[in-house]
Amino acid sequence: MRQSQLFTKTRKEIPSEETAKNAQLLLRAGFIHKEIAGVYGFLPLGLKVLNNIVQVIREEMNAIDGQEISMTALQDKAVWDKTDRWDDKNVDIWFKTKLKNDSALGLSFTHEEPITNMMTQFVRSYRDLPKFVYQFQTKFRNETRAKSGIMRTREFLMKDLYSFCHTQKEQDIYYDRVKNSYIKIFRRLGLGEKTYVTFASGGTFSKYSHEFQTVCEAGEDEIYVHDEKNIAINKEVMNPEVLKDLGIDEKDLHMEKASEVGNIFSLGTRFSDAMGLSYTDEFGEKKPVWMGSYGIGPARVMGVLAETLSDDRGMIWPHEIAPFALHLVSLGKEGSDAHKKAEEIYEELRKHKVDILFDDREVGAGEKFADSDLIGIPMRAVVSEKSLLAGGVEIKERKSDKDEIIPIEQLIKMYTNCCDDCNH
Amino acid sequence: MRQSQLFTKTRKEIPSEETAKNAQLLLRAGFIHKEIAGVYGFLPLGLKVLNNIVQVIREEMNAIDGQEISMTALQDKAVWDKTDRWDDKNVDIWFKTKLKNDSALGLSFTHEEPITNMMTQFVRSYRDLPKFVYQFQTKFRNETRAKSGIMRTREFLMKDLYSFCHTQKEQDIYYDRVKNSYIKIFRRLGLGEKTYVTFASGGTFSKYSHEFQTVCEAGEDEIYVHDEKNIAINKEVMNPEVLKDLGIDEKDLHMEKASEVGNIFSLGTRFSDAMGLSYTDEFGEKKPVWMGSYGIGPARVMGVLAETLSDDRGMIWPHEIAPFALHLVSLGKEGSDAHKKAEEIYEELRKHKVDILFDDREVGAGEKFADSDLIGIPMRAVVSEKSLLAGGVEIKERKSDKDEIIPIEQLIKMYTNCCDDCNH
Repeated sequence: MRQSQLFTKTRKEIPSEETAKNAQLLLRAGFIHKEIAGVYGFLPLGLKVLNNIVQVIREEMNAIDGQEISMTALQDKAVWDKTDRWDDKNVDIWFKTKLKNDSALGLSFTHEEPITNMMTQFVRSYRDLPKFVYQFQTKFRNETRAKSGIMRTREFLMKDLYSFCHTQKEQDIYYDRVKNSYIKIFRRLGLGEKTYVTFASGGTFSKYSHEFQTVCEAGEDEIYVHDEKNIAINKEVMNPEVLKDLGIDEKDLHMEKASEVGNIFSLGTRFSDAMGLSYTDEFGEKKPVWMGSYGIGPARVMGVLAETLSDDRGMIWPHEIAPFALHLVSLGKEGSDAHKKAEEIYEELRKHKVDILFDDREVGAGEKFADSDLIGIPMRAVVSEKSLLAGGVEIKERKSDKDEIIPIEQLIKMYTNCCDDCNH
Repeated sequence: MRQSQLFTKTRKEIPSEETAKNAQLLLRAGFIHKEIAGVYGFLPLGLKVLNNIVQVIREEMNAIDGQEISMTALQDKAVWDKTDRWDDKNVDIWFKTKLKNDSALGLSFTHEEPITNMMTQFVRSYRDLPKFVYQFQTKFRNETRAKSGIMRTREFLMKDLYSFCHTQKEQDIYYDRVKNSYIKIFRRLGLGEKTYVTFASGGTFSKYSHEFQTVCEAGEDEIYVHDEKNIAINKEVMNPEVLKDLGIDEKDLHMEKASEVGNIFSLGTRFSDAMGLSYTDEFGEKKPVWMGSYGIGPARVMGVLAETLSDDRGMIWPHEIAPFALHLVSLGKEGSDAHKKAEEIYEELRKHKVDILFDDREVGAGEKFADSDLIGIPMRAVVSEKSLLAGGVEIKERKSDKDEIIPIEQLIKMYTNCCDDCNH
């Protein structure tokens, strides 16, 4: 799109009330809007990044047989009474509201209860299992403090996947599939190298759960990383027994601050027992359903990316989730050869459906470069009288300091390597 | 996808508490899930339809220069106090909640206030206008009654577009662009013939607003339709003055029940005045911003489609928003020639990324046909020993009673008319 049309603008000043680097950067770059403390909206550039993160997760959820649904935020007290998680004494992050007839409603902070309750309508026999159901849905959590930018908010999109299996063994196998899927997801999201499968506290049905922790100064957790094994242990469960279970020597660990970008959890039969979710097996016997739940917060991922993949000048988005594939910058005044060439390149790439941001604004080169670095599109192509004289456009990767002149045709080819006869 | 894997099932019994036809049909077909009265979730088939509706609207919003964002549900009292719309005496559909420090929060029922407030950060000069911003976002409305299925709910997705213009004239021109865009949208959504641009009450800044009303027995509105002019008048504003304004003779009108699927509204400077949204013109003079707001409820559209494009046997989805392009039904037992052929067709079409539902279940033909009619995919292709003997597959449009045998190659070609060398 044309940057002159974009309604957001970059800002020079850092909002004083924001102490988190991710919020500072993303507000300055015009990616997010702060509605209330801990409550952020997403502006065009930010929404594109968020949707790209969502799409990566969706593809990987579908690849492990997930079926996508969308549940509701408004929740019925009766459903949550069954697990005793309605009472504010047991869950202290509810937002509650009520109908006109004074019936109490809650705003979902998670969905184990309603989805287990719903599945009782669809699961009868062993033929109906296993099933894997996920959603991208807005959760509400009444956090006391809100100081981490979009890494911990009171209203946020969450991907939550739930598994429904015949047996503990089947559940364990699916749990491992999700673990591998998450490793792939965080790699695709550009966080692979900094993200560790981290042992954390389990529950009645399994000794450990696994968190996906990304090493990050702004993180709220502390983890002990084992470089060679490429795993970590959450400080909360760090003790001699865990070290023994994992065959790890304490001296091989180093402590890091980290942010939990995902988690996977075996629920056993806790929720299916409470909600009456069971099935009849091949021999006519009634059996409980084994469950797991698996979360990723796309907006938190975006916050962690802003914390870890950025420099003094701004964001450095990974290719797959960048708001645009290319930042085309014209330094020519309107009517000049350089500007005309830039317009031609823009139209040619648009024809090929390449998603580019075209800085066609009438502002100085310095402002254009500063904005380009702040917004952080992986590749920048500058068209100026100088670049044309030198033989084309000046391209530069955001993560590198090296620029290079390439012919215009080569730039077009870089982004349109489809067959020539094809309309795509 | 394989129907044997789909976690939802069709139901024969009509849920007794549901009086609305759309909810009965969509619950029976497994498209939606009722969480609370007036609060519905979307299951895999229903979410696909909803997303298809959203995508049609998104494409048309982008075509009229809309920029997509996503605002928050949680709302700050202070912002709404400025227009006096916080008080329950003035707006009686708020859901209210509060932070732990007892600060009051509301759940957005619309977004004029917060978006106008936000735009004060981005609009300074005449160069910053006009701008058009939209979102698909969940609204909450504390409705007293909930009897219309998904046509009127307490939590629902809404597309809301807001325009920000220099002058009333510029605003009027954009208003007409949106009107034409909406006409195109409802045509694409399969509601074109039954949907009328309907004159409704305006406000301080314009005599009329326009509703898009779809003729529908279950609708809550009454409109007077003028067939020849292809417009309608909402009963609420029907009087001699309106007839005179529109040059219409009362005898040419007939009354119909209808459901409001969209509306467009000139807001004038009501919200910009209250929020202090202004710009400096070419001569350094401060001017108010002229606004409009434009809504479509994708889930209500889905409900109206279920009410109007259905028969005794089930849904009849229009092509562009159907959950799948083709319902492939195998009548062969596992291992039979018919089943093997059906599997081959499924894999071939999948390879070409055709989105099909494949009924590979081990159930009787009667159940398969009944489910296929209920789910309502526009085209069905049956593979059986009989069809193979007759020369291929039996295809039948959902909306027609005529079936026909065509060679398998022809079916494949119908859904894959891409160039042979292309990988798409």
